[in-house]
Amino acid sequence: MKLNPPILTNLRVVLVRTRNPLNIGAVARAMSNFGFSQLRLVNPYERAFREARSAVGASEILAAAQEYKTIADAVADCGLVIGATAVGGREVQHPLKRLEEAAEVARAQTCGVALLFGSEKVGLSNDDLSYCHWLLRIPTTRDHRSMNLGQAVAICLYELVRQPGPISEPRQAETATATKLERMTAVLTEALHACGYMTDEATRTTEEKTRRLIRRLNLSSADAELLLGMLRHISRKFG
Amino acid sequence: MKLNPPILTNLRVVLVRTRNPLNIGAVARAMSNFGFSQLRLVNPYERAFREARSAVGASEILAAAQEYKTIADAVADCGLVIGATAVGGREVQHPLKRLEEAAEVARAQTCGVALLFGSEKVGLSNDDLSYCHWLLRIPTTRDHRSMNLGQAVAICLYELVRQPGPISEPRQAETATATKLERMTAVLTEALHACGYMTDEATRTTEEKTRRLIRRLNLSSADAELLLGMLRHISRKFG
Repeated sequence: MKLNPPILTNLRVVLVRTRNPLNIGAVARAMSNFGFSQLRLVNPYERAFREARSAVGASEILAAAQEYKTIADAVADCGLVIGATAVGGREVQHPLKRLEEAAEVARAQTCGVALLFGSEKVGLSNDDLSYCHWLLRIPTTRDHRSMNLGQAVAICLYELVRQPGPISEPRQAETATATKLERMTAVLTEALHACGYMTDEATRTTEEKTRRLIRRLNLSSADAELLLGMLRHISRKFG
Repeated sequence: MKLNPPILTNLRVVLVRTRNPLNIGAVARAMSNFGFSQLRLVNPYERAFREARSAVGASEILAAAQEYKTIADAVADCGLVIGATAVGGREVQHPLKRLEEAAEVARAQTCGVALLFGSEKVGLSNDDLSYCHWLLRIPTTRDHRSMNLGQAVAICLYELVRQPGPISEPRQAETATATKLERMTAVLTEALHACGYMTDEATRTTEEKTRRLIRRLNLSSADAELLLGMLRHISRKFG
């Protein structure tokens, strides 16, 4: 059994002055997609928060979300506070990490980690940023830096749990044996003869070509069986 | 100067039967955030597409988005077609790659790459999936797999451009386009009909099965041509 990474319990997603209930809902949904649970809101627009909570299918995460008057209160129990930013000129006074590096540092913490997102219109203010140890930047293009809030949060959470290590689901399928491939070659060759694709003088070359082609297909055992069944039907029809 | 990675021009984001104009807008926004430009819509809800296009600040990407009647048309110029899925039981017949691995393979292509996203309610149907070479899964938690469409697209695009530099050898052989694969599917289906492999009531399932089989073969352009030639000969004989 695999243990949950500590970041899942350590992280607090902190939304500052969020205006749009749909964004609050989208943030909560991404959190549940990736296994996070602590959502905190600093001065959300009252109506936005109310609407988000009462939306159909609103999650436990929204029901348990905490509201705070100030950033200081919202991050009080955190040992690391990170501000997410699209980075214009003004924030350069803060150290800046690319998302991948930021996630690596965040995962290594044993304390509470706050990840702050500003309002849709203006992001985090200089005052908000002053509570942050450093800033995180999602590597967007230079010309279109400003991201949708729900999408920015989703990408950050994905990067936080994206596990290095084995990344592909193991290939289940058994590969076809040479015997089966040779049987396919024979049936296909026969059909090609019957339909006039092979002229007599070129038979040998075409047979070789067919044999090589069938190997290149890299068939699983099941697929070879399927194709063989089809070819047999076709071949039988030719008599 | 760093050259743009080829995936930025190779990728087509294909939205199938999208219902919500906000989602279409969010997808376009994420595309511009990460430098992609080709958006294609298959049978979007008319009103959704219209609203998305007329929204304040609608991007050039939306203005240039192409509309298609079928998936076959939308992916015709692509050599690799990937379906994004939350993966329930039903799609296990397709090879499945985790997002990271999927992105690596997609980046290595020199051909057009289509990335398909289904409707908000039901995702991609089995018929939709039969046009895909393989499926991609975002590593969500087991209990909350279903993602918001705009967030799912944003995460995929982020992962596609996250890596600096080329990380794997480009594939030598040019892969067969979806048009060619679809032609093969049609000719094989026809032959299977003619020889009695398909019973009338099972036609649709067999057609889907055939379509999936042909995608799994992972054919080069030259091999597809060769096989198509064979199948045409066989089919003509039945005609």
